[in-house]
Amino acid sequence: MRRKPIKTAVVGATGYTGLEIVKLLLNHPGVEIASLTAKVDETTAIDRVFPQLMGRLEMECSNLDVDNVRRKAELVFLALPHTVSMLFAPLFLEAGKKVIDLSADYRFPSPAEFEKWYGSPHRDPAGAGKAVYGLPELFRDQIAPARLLANPGCYPTATILACYPALKAGLAAPEGIIVDAKTGVTGAGRKASLPLLFPEVNENFKAYSLAVHKHTPEMEGVLSRATGRNVRLEFAPHLLPVNRGILSTIYLKLKKEVAENDLYDLYREHYGREPFVRVYPPGKLPELKDAVGTNNCLLGFKVNPRTGNLIVVSAIDNLLKGAAGQAVQNMNIMEGLPETEGLI
Amino acid sequence: MRRKPIKTAVVGATGYTGLEIVKLLLNHPGVEIASLTAKVDETTAIDRVFPQLMGRLEMECSNLDVDNVRRKAELVFLALPHTVSMLFAPLFLEAGKKVIDLSADYRFPSPAEFEKWYGSPHRDPAGAGKAVYGLPELFRDQIAPARLLANPGCYPTATILACYPALKAGLAAPEGIIVDAKTGVTGAGRKASLPLLFPEVNENFKAYSLAVHKHTPEMEGVLSRATGRNVRLEFAPHLLPVNRGILSTIYLKLKKEVAENDLYDLYREHYGREPFVRVYPPGKLPELKDAVGTNNCLLGFKVNPRTGNLIVVSAIDNLLKGAAGQAVQNMNIMEGLPETEGLI
Amino acid sequence: MRRKPIKTAVVGATGYTGLEIVKLLLNHPGVEIASLTAKVDETTAIDRVFPQLMGRLEMECSNLDVDNVRRKAELVFLALPHTVSMLFAPLFLEAGKKVIDLSADYRFPSPAEFEKWYGSPHRDPAGAGKAVYGLPELFRDQIAPARLLANPGCYPTATILACYPALKAGLAAPEGIIVDAKTGVTGAGRKASLPLLFPEVNENFKAYSLAVHKHTPEMEGVLSRATGRNVRLEFAPHLLPVNRGILSTIYLKLKKEVAENDLYDLYREHYGREPFVRVYPPGKLPELKDAVGTNNCLLGFKVNPRTGNLIVVSAIDNLLKGAAGQAVQNMNIMEGLPETEGLI
Amino acid sequence: MRRKPIKTAVVGATGYTGLEIVKLLLNHPGVEIASLTAKVDETTAIDRVFPQLMGRLEMECSNLDVDNVRRKAELVFLALPHTVSMLFAPLFLEAGKKVIDLSADYRFPSPAEFEKWYGSPHRDPAGAGKAVYGLPELFRDQIAPARLLANPGCYPTATILACYPALKAGLAAPEGIIVDAKTGVTGAGRKASLPLLFPEVNENFKAYSLAVHKHTPEMEGVLSRATGRNVRLEFAPHLLPVNRGILSTIYLKLKKEVAENDLYDLYREHYGREPFVRVYPPGKLPELKDAVGTNNCLLGFKVNPRTGNLIVVSAIDNLLKGAAGQAVQNMNIMEGLPETEGLI
Repeated sequence: MRRKPIKTAVVGATGYTGLEIVKLLLNHPGVEIASLTAKVDETTAIDRVFPQLMGRLEMECSNLDVDNVRRKAELVFLALPHTVSMLFAPLFLEAGKKVIDLSADYRFPSPAEFEKWYGSPHRDPAGAGKAVYGLPELFRDQIAPARLLANPGCYPTATILACYPALKAGLAAPEGIIVDAKTGVTGAGRKASLPLLFPEVNENFKAYSLAVHKHTPEMEGVLSRATGRNVRLEFAPHLLPVNRGILSTIYLKLKKEVAENDLYDLYREHYGREPFVRVYPPGKLPELKDAVGTNNCLLGFKVNPRTGNLIVVSAIDNLLKGAAGQAVQNMNIMEGLPETEGLI
Repeated sequence: MRRKPIKTAVVGATGYTGLEIVKLLLNHPGVEIASLTAKVDETTAIDRVFPQLMGRLEMECSNLDVDNVRRKAELVFLALPHTVSMLFAPLFLEAGKKVIDLSADYRFPSPAEFEKWYGSPHRDPAGAGKAVYGLPELFRDQIAPARLLANPGCYPTATILACYPALKAGLAAPEGIIVDAKTGVTGAGRKASLPLLFPEVNENFKAYSLAVHKHTPEMEGVLSRATGRNVRLEFAPHLLPVNRGILSTIYLKLKKEVAENDLYDLYREHYGREPFVRVYPPGKLPELKDAVGTNNCLLGFKVNPRTGNLIVVSAIDNLLKGAAGQAVQNMNIMEGLPETEGLI
Repeated sequence: MRRKPIKTAVVGATGYTGLEIVKLLLNHPGVEIASLTAKVDETTAIDRVFPQLMGRLEMECSNLDVDNVRRKAELVFLALPHTVSMLFAPLFLEAGKKVIDLSADYRFPSPAEFEKWYGSPHRDPAGAGKAVYGLPELFRDQIAPARLLANPGCYPTATILACYPALKAGLAAPEGIIVDAKTGVTGAGRKASLPLLFPEVNENFKAYSLAVHKHTPEMEGVLSRATGRNVRLEFAPHLLPVNRGILSTIYLKLKKEVAENDLYDLYREHYGREPFVRVYPPGKLPELKDAVGTNNCLLGFKVNPRTGNLIVVSAIDNLLKGAAGQAVQNMNIMEGLPETEGLI
Repeated sequence: MRRKPIKTAVVGATGYTGLEIVKLLLNHPGVEIASLTAKVDETTAIDRVFPQLMGRLEMECSNLDVDNVRRKAELVFLALPHTVSMLFAPLFLEAGKKVIDLSADYRFPSPAEFEKWYGSPHRDPAGAGKAVYGLPELFRDQIAPARLLANPGCYPTATILACYPALKAGLAAPEGIIVDAKTGVTGAGRKASLPLLFPEVNENFKAYSLAVHKHTPEMEGVLSRATGRNVRLEFAPHLLPVNRGILSTIYLKLKKEVAENDLYDLYREHYGREPFVRVYPPGKLPELKDAVGTNNCLLGFKVNPRTGNLIVVSAIDNLLKGAAGQAVQNMNIMEGLPETEGLI
């Protein structure tokens, strides 16, 4: 007998990530969308905000009323800016709801690390330590029973999955890593801003936040804990003139000679049964477009004997495996549903 | 003996049009940039706003101080929003300066027509009737002695040049014209706005302001006056995911059969000696990219005997022939300089 | 009890349309992909051609062997160039297979019309007259029992759905129609060609095939037969720098004054129960991005009382409602499956 | 008294680089275009190939006839594919002409190095050693008297200028360098090719030629010779969905702590008087669009004390400073003209 659909709420439904969650939930046979909220001037039909939903979802989006959402939903997706999620997550948890938070607020094991890089005090320090980091490929067992799930950052997802097998196996040095990452523009959110205007981004390309990007400690922290090594990396993000997708080119120092075929075996050993990781055979590299529109993380690599470097190329859709898709994957695990339900 | 360089001022130097004027003036052997102003939070070096000017122009851009500009410049380019130019143009004219206004404020022969379409009272009604409409191909003689020049709109430039010969000759009907126009995004100006964000425009295309766009009366008015006919047209603008350029596809009803070669002769008779109009031979049509980066208006056409339509395709760079380039062309005429000086 | 999956074959699987059919069939619960063929140098895994299929479809794509396909499949999608489909369709039909042809070969009621516009003799004249034109919104009843289905052209789909209600009701004149259409680049197919290189298309826009495009008679013919009027239109296609989507701006002459609300009612009467047509309320117009990725045809309109024109804006995804999506919709109807199965 | 214009020939005029050379020469007051040749099916007016030249250059482009070019021109630009230039350069040199070769054929000090990376024997081994490497900022004195000039590769230009000061001063280690480079699509040339079709490149991004790109030895060789150190680098090129421009992010290991202000002083010492290098002050980084359309190389940097890395960002227009612009800059030096003549 089929169980009753899970009642879900999306808080922050008018952003790019919010829209993706809504679209995934619409196609998911096991859930119901019970509430849509966002910071809006007035209550509006969601298909006025996103006309692509016309005929698919007739529902209003209003300002967040916590009590109302608590009445309607069992599981809440928080697609809110950093430092805002932490104000609301406790209110849903204390009412017995499950929370999947897509901000950075609960990604660190201690409030101190958050405060150091995000520059503001954590408003829910007790909760910070209790969240589960929602990267299924590394932490599936902890995700299943989670009530507060911290969905990983987009850049960290692509980087951690790319580096983990080589670092864990001790093939590559844990320091001296270079992560040259390139993202599509939806990664910057949906808000009016001069540098994100079409003529400023189109036919352009640039690096930003060199040496100070806030995803750096998330990558280093998770990789260090998962591999038992002290991982240090240079993270250099860039803005691509495309709507969606992240492609990261990652340079690691090999500690000894290794054949590409052996690396292929190693990566397949780790990811061969993962539904959303694809390892490319030697000689082939992932392209951004092959990840976009899917929940996959694509991994390919090249060994350069001249330099002793291992280059790993990692591609994801920043709004899917980097945000909404991974959130739904985590929901599936938390709810005991098939992990791939509603996802491509 | 070479005359002294003309001292020019650019008011509104931080917009896309302002930047183009600055770049053209920098390469112009007969002028000097004496002043740059804009609505800015604080006085800033112009190469901080537009780093592509680094090493080419060391000059500050400050808020407009009318007296200061009047002291420094002989000729003022007003690259200001509609309804703002009319507040300042009189102040420069009364001090004996020449004014080239790139807004719509002085493009109509009477304040009433402006008020009807722009929805606000004209603040300089006396000046409105005295401006010269700066389309050199039709009004060169009036431009030479002008002191207040109304630089044409981008869409009207492309449309008027495309229709004029066929309408003047009586080959096509003056009513029932369809102007399906497509513009690049710089045409919307440089200001933070959700619908102009990269992910909203990229991989997208849309019509806007159908039946009500403010350039409609400018096209109809100028064409009517120039041809002595009562021109009526449907103007439908669209937003292209490109930075620059306008391509308009214009449908006219032929009043009798006409060979494409005869049309070619007719258009070449009108424009054959024009430095900035190119008429394509039958069988070839202009593409947007062939106009972008130049001050040219490209014209091509096709006669469809099945429907009796004449289709004219017209392409310009909206920031050059559609704005800054035409403004410099007009300056050259007003100052007795070679008309092509500083232009490609 | 669930019926057995329908065994399908895709002939021409390495083009953009072929890929879309494969992706739709993969997500369709009622079908099985039994065969993939294309013109290939050698048999290749389909996920080598399209790496986005890695982990989703392990299947080879080989050169077409008609007997082999006839053994494996019940229903064949022909995603072949014009004039090629007609060589193979009879071979599948005579073996009792159903055929959905995505080329133009069977879209005309007589071979003569095909020959006139396509410039080559029809090789299956007997079959030409027996095909059903697969536009479900107009011809659903004929589609259900069809064995040879001619899937409509992308431009005709957008145009016919946009014009049909106004012409059928006699509100707009059947002649003097202007169809200014803009398509994404996948509409031109996946083959090496200088004018389709990225630097030739990007930051560019152009009209092509003015007065002679082969979709013209398809639009005129279907609209004439469906409305009982002699429809004549000017069709002007343009190439947009986007991957996917068609947006057509269509200008019709109103025969009398009509309120936008009445038009809205009329269009909703025709399409209100259609699963894949969305009519926008007065004051809103469809944008390309709201159609892309869906099987919807989006329709919006504007009445201009100054000119007496009705402007209809129509948007589809050229690869879905304009090709693969409509083909699957037709398959669903032909096979007695829910019409929306496997489609968004 | 003004000297007579230099008679120039462009061999390979129908490529993207050829077109840029033609456009630069057209605006250059000191030269005349005496001959245009390319591999063409038949002699064609150049403005049929590139309509943006209509009205600016009436000249035919025919297949190369060496004798004819030798009669007409004093200085020949070879915009030919690698391994083709070396067949023609000797024929022009022996007739007393100067040659500026934009291919890789003469960029190596010995034929052996060319053969190792380009995989084919050098057909003009005697000439190979006599060419001057045309990077004015490092080798101006040798360029002035050159008769055979090897114009640098686009990637090497951006990389060498970025690394030279830090390596020369011994601030950064000569090995362990990572060059993560991103180029626009014109860098791949103007020839029909499936992977360069618009829908394959647009909304996509990919790495290519990892560990084996042929520009690697050019960068290492020139930097090693110029700094007296044994430079080794990992070069990883990527394809950006833009028409023009290269932006390289370069990671060097600092050998000691250094302040960004001191680096700024060091780079300005090297490049402060260079007309076509711009050093950005600490806190600002170049973007691609600020280089495109100019002959500038833009340099900015960031020191990361956490990792000990120096990150240098370098941006050029691949067709100007990376090809045609640098070629004209070299011509100016070789001919004793002002170095900036005809360039922006």
